Amino acid sequence: MHRFLDLADFSRDQVADLIDLARRLQEHPEPHALAGKILGLLFMNPSLRTLSSFQAGMMRLGGTSFVVTPGQGTWNVETRDGTVMNGGAAEHVREAIPVLASYCDALGLRAFAEGKDLAADLAETPFNLMANLCPKPFVNLESAVNHPCQALADWKTMDDLHVPRAGKFVLSWVYHPRALPLAVPAAALHMAAQRGMEVVVLRPDGYALPEPIMAKARAAATASGGTVSETTDRATALAGAHVLYAKEWGSPACYGNAEAEAALRQPLVDWRVQESWFAGARPDCHFMHCLPVRRNVAVADAVLDGPRSQVIREAANRMVVQMAVLYRLLKG
Amino acid sequence: MHRFLDLADFSRDQVADLIDLARRLQEHPEPHALAGKILGLLFMNPSLRTLSSFQAGMMRLGGTSFVVTPGQGTWNVETRDGTVMNGGAAEHVREAIPVLASYCDALGLRAFAEGKDLAADLAETPFNLMANLCPKPFVNLESAVNHPCQALADWKTMDDLHVPRAGKFVLSWVYHPRALPLAVPAAALHMAAQRGMEVVVLRPDGYALPEPIMAKARAAATASGGTVSETTDRATALAGAHVLYAKEWGSPACYGNAEAEAALRQPLVDWRVQESWFAGARPDCHFMHCLPVRRNVAVADAVLDGPRSQVIREAANRMVVQMAVLYRLLKG
Amino acid sequence: MHRFLDLADFSRDQVADLIDLARRLQEHPEPHALAGKILGLLFMNPSLRTLSSFQAGMMRLGGTSFVVTPGQGTWNVETRDGTVMNGGAAEHVREAIPVLASYCDALGLRAFAEGKDLAADLAETPFNLMANLCPKPFVNLESAVNHPCQALADWKTMDDLHVPRAGKFVLSWVYHPRALPLAVPAAALHMAAQRGMEVVVLRPDGYALPEPIMAKARAAATASGGTVSETTDRATALAGAHVLYAKEWGSPACYGNAEAEAALRQPLVDWRVQESWFAGARPDCHFMHCLPVRRNVAVADAVLDGPRSQVIREAANRMVVQMAVLYRLLKG
Repeated sequence: MHRFLDLADFSRDQVADLIDLARRLQEHPEPHALAGKILGLLFMNPSLRTLSSFQAGMMRLGGTSFVVTPGQGTWNVETRDGTVMNGGAAEHVREAIPVLASYCDALGLRAFAEGKDLAADLAETPFNLMANLCPKPFVNLESAVNHPCQALADWKTMDDLHVPRAGKFVLSWVYHPRALPLAVPAAALHMAAQRGMEVVVLRPDGYALPEPIMAKARAAATASGGTVSETTDRATALAGAHVLYAKEWGSPACYGNAEAEAALRQPLVDWRVQESWFAGARPDCHFMHCLPVRRNVAVADAVLDGPRSQVIREAANRMVVQMAVLYRLLKG
Repeated sequence: MHRFLDLADFSRDQVADLIDLARRLQEHPEPHALAGKILGLLFMNPSLRTLSSFQAGMMRLGGTSFVVTPGQGTWNVETRDGTVMNGGAAEHVREAIPVLASYCDALGLRAFAEGKDLAADLAETPFNLMANLCPKPFVNLESAVNHPCQALADWKTMDDLHVPRAGKFVLSWVYHPRALPLAVPAAALHMAAQRGMEVVVLRPDGYALPEPIMAKARAAATASGGTVSETTDRATALAGAHVLYAKEWGSPACYGNAEAEAALRQPLVDWRVQESWFAGARPDCHFMHCLPVRRNVAVADAVLDGPRSQVIREAANRMVVQMAVLYRLLKG
Repeated sequence: MHRFLDLADFSRDQVADLIDLARRLQEHPEPHALAGKILGLLFMNPSLRTLSSFQAGMMRLGGTSFVVTPGQGTWNVETRDGTVMNGGAAEHVREAIPVLASYCDALGLRAFAEGKDLAADLAETPFNLMANLCPKPFVNLESAVNHPCQALADWKTMDDLHVPRAGKFVLSWVYHPRALPLAVPAAALHMAAQRGMEVVVLRPDGYALPEPIMAKARAAATASGGTVSETTDRATALAGAHVLYAKEWGSPACYGNAEAEAALRQPLVDWRVQESWFAGARPDCHFMHCLPVRRNVAVADAVLDGPRSQVIREAANRMVVQMAVLYRLLKG
């Protein structure tokens, strides 16, 4: 494995193998496996879990890492090709990526969506440019429309909880004060479809996920024997659900138009997960969220603090699965 | 030892044991003692000594660490329970603390006083909430009204200097352009009382330390054979002193009222430590300060650069005593 | 070696020895050479290469490091002596440097020019004060008018490329939206002179380097058999050149006067390196730049992406030569 960019680049069996390796490293630690190996971590955007779990994961395998954060002690960087750089960015990724790659054995990059042009963000143009500039093993720490480390952790979390491969997985839009990127909903949707689940996307009008994201998930479902559907009806969606996976995202219909988006979103403030949402779900229906989550805005305290919530387990699994990814990238 | 929250949680003998361990690790380094152990460091507020000395201390014991700084590359976090999180904080400590704890073997937290409500700060409510959310060994890197690592380093510094257990310790208020927290004065006062010293708090009118802080120190003095008194008279306070420990702090009487505090503080600009302060002290009276210190505002250059000053020794002892704390927390 | 402050402190043979050691460590890694050693890194200014390459270099030798960044999670620091510290800085370097030094085995410091008073910046007063406050091995990570790590990497880069010792080295001013420090042009000029090259400084009127910088380079050239000259004529400068080393810098004539500097600089926007600049140079003339570089402002895309460009190699050599410096400082 030379790159970990998208769970869709791997077969279901390959994903299962990664999760098996993650579990093996949990049960039989290998504290010297990556001795002498260095991971570079380049964060264009904030992080808590990714920042700390990648560092800790390297340490647990005997390796080390360094962190570079443009705009926070490091120059701002330009990602667009052909620009006349007379603005705020002092350095171009055409230099920054190969230079950082020369110091480390693998490079991880976080670069969120710009949120201006949907087609551009779906194309992952700057992220792919940066990935292609790196001659070393490369990890996606969250790109415009993907977050494969989160998806892999979520997959393992459901395995840990014995959620059936063909169980019902509801990805529900929830309210947030402003439009957030499509990376996690796209990654979670695809992951559940690839796992072979009965996937339902529950979202208000105006928040249907872009067709390329839905089509990719449907293709994954077809390959694995799962299904993908969408609805605006909460009761239908949650009937018999094994998992409710909540996520905030911006309206693809108003992409890049903050004013129109705010107007569309404003009446949806009641899309906040409450215990009542689970009335028709399976009694042991799990609640999942990638974090960070705004309490009592996106999800009620009672759900996050109740027995359904698996959010801490998901986050803990981030380090666990990433150790498997790093092991494969750096040791094979 | 599972937590290092407050020197008051330990007997004088237990503190002496920690200092003995610190000295043993200085003289007989154990560069592999904490191999494979990871310390997470969560800083809600700025730091120089704590940030670097905890990282270096882990390294000197063969362990590693990672740093998370909300607002500097990481989401801002909410510490209050029950909040509707529609403001600037994207994540709640109810998630952040257990998640970070899942990646590391011990967690350190710095969270200064809010400085709005004295009773709330004295209660250490957010800090205790966060400490209780952490299932792993936990270290106080400075809370609203405590700084046990500083206190332990100061205790060892006085031992190193052969300051008698029953020596005279003067904690003096000094001027600063704005109100600073009560953490260090409270911790230094209690430490000296617990050590069994003759403790005098020297401060202008309006700057008496809150009664719960004084009462706690008096109780420690009673247990150890020391005394605690307070005065506004510099000559009385410093007569025969072994140590002058200077610290800036805000008026408890005007707590949370910046305007009234500024008016109270403005005429006190001459509360700046000068060599003349030591006229009635013992000739070898030591000068101590936790740092950072504003030169020629709180303390004159001549004192900081003169032979009385132990400020560098105190700071150097931070790493030394923290290594003992980490050793006890992670190795027993 | 106890300090690495200026390439001028070393003879040409000593520099060659350092480069030999760097090459040896490249070919025969010593992953435990600095086991147990800690490097402190104090950054007063932004960094990408220095920040990551020093950390990675320590890791590759089995050592560790910590980073402190005043203003980014750490107090702002005062560097001037005798100040009444009632402004934005909470801590003085007279405390900060010895304290940090007490935690580590070697300290690196980056502190750019203030850009207000040319004589003061040329004197390196604050940097020398800080260096002298450090009792441990010390590395210059870029000071007001020096950047010895960059110079050493550039020297090795030319050796790697078999650029003759007596080859023609053109240091050319290039356009930048604002005045940048003199550190890299001064260091590159001296390095090429010390290497024994035929050095030409190409710059517009008003951008002649200060006489003390030119004099120092001329002395180095005399000692090594090289030459130093300057011109405003591009064709003359580049005729037969082996290397074009581009750098942005502020006008010494308008030092500290941003308005006058902007007026002087504004008509010079065409001082942007293009392929046409190389018309009279040797066909294999190399292009060098220390990075970061503003594409299509200081240097055209076609040059940076073309076969002449050695900018990534220079940056990669930063880690390589710094490992030799760290090895000498910490192991001898």
